[in-house]
Parts: sequence; structure tokens; C-alpha cells
Amino acid sequence: MSARPPVAGLGSADAEAVFTPIVWRDQHLLILDQTRLPQHEEWLRCDNPEQVADAISRLAVRGAPALGVAAAYGLALQLLRTDSPAELARAHALLAATRPTAVNLRWALDQGAALVAQLHAAGATDAPQRLLDWARSLHRADIETNRRLAQHGAAVLPAAARVLTHCNTGALATGGVGTALGVITHAYRLGRVASVWVDETRPLLQGARLTAWELGRAGVPYRLVTDSSVGALMARALVDVAIVGADRIAANGDTANKIGTYTAAVLAQRHGVPFYVAAPLSTVDLRTAHGDDIPIEERSPREVTELGGTRVAPEEAPALNFAFDVTPAELIAGLVTEVGVLRPPFAAALRAAAKTAG
Amino acid sequence: MSARPPVAGLGSADAEAVFTPIVWRDQHLLILDQTRLPQHEEWLRCDNPEQVADAISRLAVRGAPALGVAAAYGLALQLLRTDSPAELARAHALLAATRPTAVNLRWALDQGAALVAQLHAAGATDAPQRLLDWARSLHRADIETNRRLAQHGAAVLPAAARVLTHCNTGALATGGVGTALGVITHAYRLGRVASVWVDETRPLLQGARLTAWELGRAGVPYRLVTDSSVGALMARALVDVAIVGADRIAANGDTANKIGTYTAAVLAQRHGVPFYVAAPLSTVDLRTAHGDDIPIEERSPREVTELGGTRVAPEEAPALNFAFDVTPAELIAGLVTEVGVLRPPFAAALRAAAKTAG
Repeated sequence: MSARPPVAGLGSADAEAVFTPIVWRDQHLLILDQTRLPQHEEWLRCDNPEQVADAISRLAVRGAPALGVAAAYGLALQLLRTDSPAELARAHALLAATRPTAVNLRWALDQGAALVAQLHAAGATDAPQRLLDWARSLHRADIETNRRLAQHGAAVLPAAARVLTHCNTGALATGGVGTALGVITHAYRLGRVASVWVDETRPLLQGARLTAWELGRAGVPYRLVTDSSVGALMARALVDVAIVGADRIAANGDTANKIGTYTAAVLAQRHGVPFYVAAPLSTVDLRTAHGDDIPIEERSPREVTELGGTRVAPEEAPALNFAFDVTPAELIAGLVTEVGVLRPPFAAALRAAAKTAG
Repeated sequence: MSARPPVAGLGSADAEAVFTPIVWRDQHLLILDQTRLPQHEEWLRCDNPEQVADAISRLAVRGAPALGVAAAYGLALQLLRTDSPAELARAHALLAATRPTAVNLRWALDQGAALVAQLHAAGATDAPQRLLDWARSLHRADIETNRRLAQHGAAVLPAAARVLTHCNTGALATGGVGTALGVITHAYRLGRVASVWVDETRPLLQGARLTAWELGRAGVPYRLVTDSSVGALMARALVDVAIVGADRIAANGDTANKIGTYTAAVLAQRHGVPFYVAAPLSTVDLRTAHGDDIPIEERSPREVTELGGTRVAPEEAPALNFAFDVTPAELIAGLVTEVGVLRPPFAAALRAAAKTAG
């Protein structure tokens, strides 16, 4: 279904804050259906965790931080229906199974489940409302995290930078202004960004559909390119810096992100272009030692053989569709987080940052 | 318009030879419209060089060797209409302007023009027929060149190879069995190829539409991937060797080929995957010293912002669309030609090969 929510859904105090694709209203969740952008702005109404899980699975809502926020509301929707621990565990499992790579999803679900267990153990009678309050606070925290991350990131971009980015890491991918794209738009307002190269990001074209849409709305100059153009752009010295998001950062700094990120990082190294990853600390998974241990989601071959429902390859053409790849820490100049820009060696920096963040 | 030509258009002697997308019949040229593949097999009838130039410009016929053959027939069509040198020069310029990067096009046109000048100087009265005979011999020579090239190339592929290729370099791109794809299909028949990774090759999807179609018809096992998957495939050690075609090879071995080739070559070097270029010697341009001097065609941004006529990016989204990139010689393990596989240093090898062939 479709509906028009207010610009922000977190109350008047946050109303001027940011556009958000996730809005809580009157005991239900509204999610901007990103599969329909940029042609259509349609909002999906979710009254239960099944609808949230479905929206996540089919990428109506995507982006690691946004997945954490959506999953938190999904748990809250479950508890508002019934206080049953068994039903909550079922909703938790259902939501966790939707996307294996992004760690923020599981991070939020585990936090929520722990809170409910605590409340139940303490005999609290208002657990559903308390869980909803927690989900909303998680959403607000993501906005604040994004804002700090953008400030730290903007400081490391060279002046008048021509910035390359991949996939979509803006307001559509988070609860707030975004991660890598939040850095870019903030730096642009500070006069530090000349223009942005937007990889189209096949197969689902998050760059062409979503990042282009966001940069257009923000008035930031950009040009769209095919993913395979990155090498040519760098060989012509048209890129000063690259910044991308992350779906999971291992303890050693190895980073899983949208397929194509690794390729861009290898090219950046060859051409001496600094390559940054911007992500909140909730994306860091200290229990995963290195990139090889990160589960990589394989999605339907039809995302490759079709485009917008139109078949481009021959009938029955087999295809392989890894949704993510892993960029080894050695190719990353810095990890931009809400507590500052971490530099190599990342293992020590990440452990220290996790302690600071508490 | 549409028509169904015979399997081969070069007479019974070549009838068993190969499928060809360029067929001469009854004083006109038939071109398989590759923009309509794989959904539709439609043939365009060309009665004059303007129609041939249009077919080349909009990529109804593409691939460096095929462009040489089509352009040769285009000149012949002109001379069959009128013997005027001024009109022939106009047709030459029109055809040459269609695609700046592929050198085979200009190579064929210059050869044809020189032949006509010679015939006119000698007072020949059958110049139109002689030019047509020359165009047909060029077509036959391309078939033979492809065959030899396939034999040389197959010998360098490792046993049971999982081969990566980019764009389309098969029968659709040449007069014969193809260059890089000719090597692959020939090696497959010799039992040397286990499977093929086919890059989809945005923006025009020659891999997804044409290479997948050809490999399917030939019964060669393949899987389609997005261009941005090459890094992930190599990082997982799923690629044993890479082989691509060329639109122009400079005197030092630097090679211009479809956008994305350079990226694949950089990744291949990082992962120790041998990277081969397969092309006839007509693709070598000894007058171009190195890759920086090769003109790179920039095509319409709409090829990036649209797909099959459907807009994927926001209205007015600006895009940049380089059709080719340049792979420096240092990343190339060998140049597979009709006279053998040339090894570095390429400058000396290319000069020697040109003398042998010349």
C-alpha cells in the first residue's frame, strides 16, 4: 500500500533533522519502497514483523544501518501484538534470516531480545512500550551517529575533491543523513567536494536509482558511470578520493560491502587514490576475525539476467550473483566512524574504538 | 526491414564454415541487427553506405573485425552506385567517422580506397566489381584469420580452464568464428575449457545478450556475472585465465578494448591470472605509439541512464559513457594473433609480426 508520511517521523524535535525512509506512526511502521525509486515514491505499511522481513528481503529497505533500525521496529511490532517469548524468538529468527551479510541487523535484534529478556525477568508489565521506545532511541541514535561520522569524514577529504562512491549509503540506507554519502553531502556544504562520480551499481542499480536521486535532491553535482568505468576514470586522474559504506567490518578491518567495492579498492591502490570506508561502529563485528569469515549473500540470478522485470540475457542463461565482496584491510586508508577516523593497523584501533563507544 | 539469409553468405565453398552476421546477397548487404538480440533475430538490408554507416553507429553491427568487413562492403555499395571519386571519398569519410577507436574500420577503408585509386589510374572499367571482389576476399580472409588465431590461442589456455571474458568477440563480432570467443569455443572442443565466466558488459550488455547467446548455441558451459563481480571471482580463485578482444593495439602493445577490460586486467595481475588479448594483426596500429594516443569514443549518456529504452536513473541525471579503456602492455601476458602468440616485449614482436604478415 501507499501513504504519505511526514518528512520525519520522530516528532517535532527531530522534524528538521533529516529525511528518513523509515517512519513510525500510530503503532505501525512506514517504509519507503526503494525498489520503486526514482520513478515512484511509495510507502509500505507494516503491521507485523513478517511484513518488515519481506520488505528487507526484497530490498524495499536496505543499507546496513537502516536494516538495524527496521529490524528493531520489527521486533517492537511483534511485542505489541503478543508478549509471548516464543513468538518473539520466531520474529527474531525470521528477521535475522533475511540478509546474512549486514551485521547491524543481527546487532539490533540481539540488543532488542536482550532488553526484552531483562524486562521479562524484572517482571515489567510495559515491555512492548519499552521495546518500542528502545527502537525509536536506536533510530535517533543512528541520526546522531551519522551526523558525527559525516563531520569526521568531511575533514579527511582533500579540498575540491572529485569523489568516487559505490552503491547507496545516504539517507535511504540509514536512519539519518547516511554514512559515505552523508560524508560527501556534508563535505560539499563545507566547500570541500567539487563533484561526485556515482557507480551505477549493478545488478540493482542503487547508484543510478538511489544515490543519483539523493544527490540530485541535495544539489550536489554528480555524474553517473557504469561500474566498469572506475578503472578508466582513475587512469585519467579524474578521481581524488573514494569513499564507500560497509555491511560488515571484521576485527582486522577487512570490509564486506556491495559487490564491486573490492574492484574499486584495487584500482584505487594502483592509482594512489585514498580509499575510505564510512560506517558506524555497529557495523564492526569483533567476533569475526577476518574477511574470509564473513558470510556473503548470494541473491537470485534473475537480478542479473533481468532488469526491471525485462529479460536482457537469453532464456535459461545461468548467472551467479554475489551481493557483496570483501575488501582487505590493506587497501583501506581509513575507517570513518562516529568516534573519529580510524587508521591502520585497524585491529588495535577497532578494539579501542569499541571500548570508547562502550 | 527483416529478412532471413542463408547460414553463410560466401558461397557453397564456405557454407559449412561459420555463422556470419554480415551477408552479401544480390548486390546488397544483410546485417544481423545485434541491438535486437537475443530476443529477436532481425536482418537489416543495406543498399548504400549511409545505411551501413547507420548500422555501425547504432551498433547493429559491432566488433572490430566485423566493422572492417562491413565498411569494406559499404565502400563497394557506393562504387556500385556511381564510379565518382568524390562520392567514394564522401562514403569513406562517412564510414570512417562512425567509430573512432576500432582501427580495423579505417584499415579496411584505406585499403579499399587505395585499390580503387589504383584501378582508376590503370583505367580499369570494372572497378565496382573488383572492389566488391576485394570486400568478399577480406571477409573470407577474416574467417581464415579467426581460424588460425583460435588454434594458436587454444594452445596457451591451461587445461580444464575456467576462462573469464568480457564483451562479445565471437562470430557476431567478426567475419568468422571470433577472436577471444573463437579461441574459447575452439579450446572447449579440444577439451581445454571447463567453463566460461561472461561479464555482462554494461552499458549495452554485449556479454549478457550476445556472448551468452553464442555460447548457448555452441553448447559451451558458462555463467553470466555483473562486471563488478570480477574481483570477487578472482579473490575466490574461480578464474584460471582471462582472454578478451581488442579494438586497437598500439605499437607498444597497449590495448584499447571495451570499457571494463582495464579493470579486469588490473585484477588479473593482482591475482596472478594470465591475461590474454586476441586480435588479428589488422587491429594493430603501428602508427599509434602507445595507448594514450588512441582516441576513445564517448557515447551517449542515455546508454547508461536507460536500459532497453527504459529509464533507470532519475530524469536529467548526468552520465559519462566512455565506450573503451586502455590496458597497458605490462598487464598483458600475450597477444594471440593469426601468426602466433606474441610475448613481451610487444614492440619488437609486433613489428616482426607485421613484416611476416605484410
